[in-house]
Amino acid sequence: MTQSHPEISEEQRSREDALVQVVLDSFEQTGDARLKEIMTSAVRHLHSFLREVRLTEGEWKQGIDFLTTVGHMCDERRQEFILLSDTLGASMQTIAINNEAYADATEATVFGPFFVEDAPRVELGGDIAGAATGQPCWVEGTVQDTEGNALAGARIEVWEADEDGFYDVQYDDARTGGRAHLFTDDEGAYRFWAITPTPYPIPHDGPVGLMLAATGRSPMRASHLHFMVTAPGLRTLVTHIFVRGDGYLSSDSVFGVKESLVKDFIEQPKGTPTPDGRELGDGTWSRVRFDIVLAPPDAV
Amino acid sequence: MTQSHPEISEEQRSREDALVQVVLDSFEQTGDARLKEIMTSAVRHLHSFLREVRLTEGEWKQGIDFLTTVGHMCDERRQEFILLSDTLGASMQTIAINNEAYADATEATVFGPFFVEDAPRVELGGDIAGAATGQPCWVEGTVQDTEGNALAGARIEVWEADEDGFYDVQYDDARTGGRAHLFTDDEGAYRFWAITPTPYPIPHDGPVGLMLAATGRSPMRASHLHFMVTAPGLRTLVTHIFVRGDGYLSSDSVFGVKESLVKDFIEQPKGTPTPDGRELGDGTWSRVRFDIVLAPPDAV
Repeated sequence: MTQSHPEISEEQRSREDALVQVVLDSFEQTGDARLKEIMTSAVRHLHSFLREVRLTEGEWKQGIDFLTTVGHMCDERRQEFILLSDTLGASMQTIAINNEAYADATEATVFGPFFVEDAPRVELGGDIAGAATGQPCWVEGTVQDTEGNALAGARIEVWEADEDGFYDVQYDDARTGGRAHLFTDDEGAYRFWAITPTPYPIPHDGPVGLMLAATGRSPMRASHLHFMVTAPGLRTLVTHIFVRGDGYLSSDSVFGVKESLVKDFIEQPKGTPTPDGRELGDGTWSRVRFDIVLAPPDAV
Repeated sequence: MTQSHPEISEEQRSREDALVQVVLDSFEQTGDARLKEIMTSAVRHLHSFLREVRLTEGEWKQGIDFLTTVGHMCDERRQEFILLSDTLGASMQTIAINNEAYADATEATVFGPFFVEDAPRVELGGDIAGAATGQPCWVEGTVQDTEGNALAGARIEVWEADEDGFYDVQYDDARTGGRAHLFTDDEGAYRFWAITPTPYPIPHDGPVGLMLAATGRSPMRASHLHFMVTAPGLRTLVTHIFVRGDGYLSSDSVFGVKESLVKDFIEQPKGTPTPDGRELGDGTWSRVRFDIVLAPPDAV
């Protein structure tokens, strides 16, 4: 995969090594040991990258221009550096590092940029759709710890895009939809109406979109429903569930899919009675079960 | 220097490895082989960095915020990403990679952000100071190829900060000073008046300045005079000369100093006659010699 470059002379190699060492030495007086560790590691990997690809001065300039454009794209509604981190797998790798799999606890995935504090509360069995349109989806399951104890009163935050692929916060009209929080019952069970997740592209009209296009990559995310689950004394879980059979499971643009998080969203024919007697007229609906297991807090 | 982290389990390691591979595979369809090489190398080193330091989610957020602030600091007069590249030694490493030392040719160093096209022409022996104030400095030397042939008509661009540490383009009043171009004579010799270089800080009122402060580093650059020298059929030389004895030679904030580029700027007592009879009244002046050797174009 790596292109061949002309052999580097020993003298040249030692000049380049010496420069790396001078830069590392410049961080010797860093008071904060953790900052020093991060900066020196970043410098070593940055220089290794430059030397490995033998970056040209023109390519360096293109890199500076790309990062500058990414920065200029960021405002209160758009975080292009998070998109860049997501599409290079850096966000997911950070999640992986900090949410090491623990026994049978549910796996974590990316948080994404669309969570909102203070989403409306719904009662068990309530509907989170609000202003978001789409096919109704009945979601149910339980929350337990890794020893099988039911967790009553666990807080569940859920959020998702509408059938047009947009989260409520992406609209200009301050609507709320496709997000809510609720609490498990005494048996640790939960249930709510949402909408069946559909695939959508990450915002791709900026430099990250250009990068994806230039490398033949799709901006599409596999269909998913976000969860954040908290219970006192346990590790907070940030995750999604994905739709089995979705066409983007193997090419999710932010690498968020884990096999254990792919669930059966079962399509219900027209007229199938709903679990809570809700009347859906001629419409179809779907249902999915997601049983959640929270890890102990010191699991990483 | 590296802090110890808890041992990573084999299972965790293989999860992290698998994620890196999935991200690398996503670039498989990149049409441009060079772009593919650069992106996949960048991904490998980025993930190696994250895994080596076990970056926390809070630190990831700080990193996103830092890069965003760097981007927002960039405008037509300020390029904070170049400052970041400079202060991490990435600019100088790119120079090193692309200007491999060749025989006795003069060494290259960083270009910096202050070069301007179409600087005024001065005749041999003329003064480049213009609006820039400082102690007069007589600069002279020759331009040759690596076989010792004098290069007549070689173009020399020179630029420098004034005694207050600012380049002309850093002022709001569109002044021109401390920059010019000239040509060598039939013997390949050149001479001009400039001002004696003094140390100055890189712009440090932004996020890069905060990074330098947090890591105990100085923003000061060692005193220097910029040169760019071109002659048909030879490698263009971008370099500086530095002032021997300057206090910042060993801590230049952009790592630009090379021993071969440190020159004797000889202080002349008041009243010392000038080489061209220029009358300097009661003022002191300095003089320096810089003989330049250009490499063949295919030297890298």
